[in-house]
Amino acid sequence: ADAGLAARLAHAIDNKTKPRGSLGVLETLAHQIGLVQRTTAPAIEAPAILVFAGDHGVVAEGISAFPQDVTWQMVENFLAGGAAINVFAAQNGCTLQVVDAGVAHDFGPRDGLTDRKIAHGTRNFAVEPAMTPGQCTQARGAGAALVDALPGNVIGFGEMGIGNTTAAAALMHKLTGIPAAACVGAGTGLAPDGVLRKGRVIEAAAARHAGVTEPLDVLATFGGFEIAMMAGAMLRAAERRMVLLIDGFIVTSALLVAARLQPAILDYCVFAHCSNEHGHRQMLEALGGKPLLQLDLRLGEGTGSALALPLVHAAVNFLNRMATFASAQVSEKS
Amino acid sequence: ADAGLAARLAHAIDNKTKPRGSLGVLETLAHQIGLVQRTTAPAIEAPAILVFAGDHGVVAEGISAFPQDVTWQMVENFLAGGAAINVFAAQNGCTLQVVDAGVAHDFGPRDGLTDRKIAHGTRNFAVEPAMTPGQCTQARGAGAALVDALPGNVIGFGEMGIGNTTAAAALMHKLTGIPAAACVGAGTGLAPDGVLRKGRVIEAAAARHAGVTEPLDVLATFGGFEIAMMAGAMLRAAERRMVLLIDGFIVTSALLVAARLQPAILDYCVFAHCSNEHGHRQMLEALGGKPLLQLDLRLGEGTGSALALPLVHAAVNFLNRMATFASAQVSEKS
Repeated sequence: ADAGLAARLAHAIDNKTKPRGSLGVLETLAHQIGLVQRTTAPAIEAPAILVFAGDHGVVAEGISAFPQDVTWQMVENFLAGGAAINVFAAQNGCTLQVVDAGVAHDFGPRDGLTDRKIAHGTRNFAVEPAMTPGQCTQARGAGAALVDALPGNVIGFGEMGIGNTTAAAALMHKLTGIPAAACVGAGTGLAPDGVLRKGRVIEAAAARHAGVTEPLDVLATFGGFEIAMMAGAMLRAAERRMVLLIDGFIVTSALLVAARLQPAILDYCVFAHCSNEHGHRQMLEALGGKPLLQLDLRLGEGTGSALALPLVHAAVNFLNRMATFASAQVSEKS
Repeated sequence: ADAGLAARLAHAIDNKTKPRGSLGVLETLAHQIGLVQRTTAPAIEAPAILVFAGDHGVVAEGISAFPQDVTWQMVENFLAGGAAINVFAAQNGCTLQVVDAGVAHDFGPRDGLTDRKIAHGTRNFAVEPAMTPGQCTQARGAGAALVDALPGNVIGFGEMGIGNTTAAAALMHKLTGIPAAACVGAGTGLAPDGVLRKGRVIEAAAARHAGVTEPLDVLATFGGFEIAMMAGAMLRAAERRMVLLIDGFIVTSALLVAARLQPAILDYCVFAHCSNEHGHRQMLEALGGKPLLQLDLRLGEGTGSALALPLVHAAVNFLNRMATFASAQVSEKS
């Protein structure tokens, strides 16, 4: 059935009024979305970006350029509509849901904030596991349940969490074997000596937790609540045959965990953007991901996914709306 | 005044709630558009894509994979709304104007077609100059007048013309000195031996017209009516301080001519896409252009510009709509 569908999709794409292959990666994307939705006439319905926020005990090691309070302050900024992701999601017709996965701050009941707080930040993985196995399970389950409540068929992932490039780099190091020094970057703007320290913190923690190798154990030991919640959400979204928009270093680290648990998830993933965060390109390569955009962004929040959404629409639209050589009576290649 | 504005733009961009520089090329783009529009609060108004169609006498040399009739057939497809550019322009809120600059076909009066036909195709530049100096002047003037009639402040350029990658490659070879073999590519899908022939046709023509070196003479000798009309439109658009969206091999060749006449035009240009047409990357480098997108497109029609338009909106929107560190009470870098 899938081979038949793939052939029908290729035929539909090749017969549009354009030289064969001339829409480049949009053709690949249209083909992929057709397979995900099991149709030659795919449709994008109610795209949503979920931004997961969480704090990280590892900030005690001095691995971030910004103070931890920025996590909750930026959540407030999301709720007030003043962050980059608010602007880009609104522009491109994408709903935005802000989730407290584990911020070290009491927001109280707040309109527009989805409270799924696991705890007030993780523990410091330089000293002890970031979370308990139970907390990790709870976070993944909460992510899956959020996906079940979505009406649409495209989900983008975003995150906010001071210190979370350190957690993501640790996951990358443990799950790919790439040296810690190649996994760490400047994050929000760390100076070179800080980046070196970040690498040493990860190396020391990896040595301390050397026996931890199973993906879920690695996630619990080094991850963050927002990362675990995203991993759970991603797995459920693929089960529901949604298109997953993947951007950014931290979002991609959640996918790295999810793909170790369920490799077929990659069939559902559209890689939105290759970040300027050092290590992201290698992380994408480890997943075989080819990003649509390279805009030198290094902001997170799901901004790359929001910005790539028009290209996803373009892929679906050309497949549904362009004339064929026959219908338009255009001569084919001689 | 401009130095002051540049400083105010940089300050406005740096004070948005994001790590400094973390919006990458969107920051560069916002800064550029602010300078073009002479304001720290730029606005995109009524973006338009003009698709210029023309035929080329050089097709007699067998340098295209598709028959010449495809030019007028694709114009009909544009008018019927079935081409890729129709789909992408409509999706991204961009008006589309289709201009007959010199198609070798009688359309008769047609709703939706702007008739500025200079002649039924150019002459074969392998034998004689493609157009007369008078025709070249007429084409540039027609392009400028079309720009004067536009209500908006962003213009994208598109084209259709079987044979026009050969004309564009000849312009590139003559104006940059890059060897013809590095300027030619597969166009709509020429086989490798055809690409070699195309290179030889250009070399022979360049030898035949060796004394032609001034940009306008080069344009008249090797160009096309659609290319000359675009060059005239570009120069007027820059005079009117519009943002020019440049994509594709043929559109960029028109800019190459325009930039030789008026180098300051480059301040107004946003490079939308690096095409898969061989030679485009080197042509962009010759102009110092850094394209926003690399989607392996090689279709023309202005598709890259239509697809890049959401990024232009994103640049303007983050500058106008994001909160500042102060307004959002977010802590700055420690």
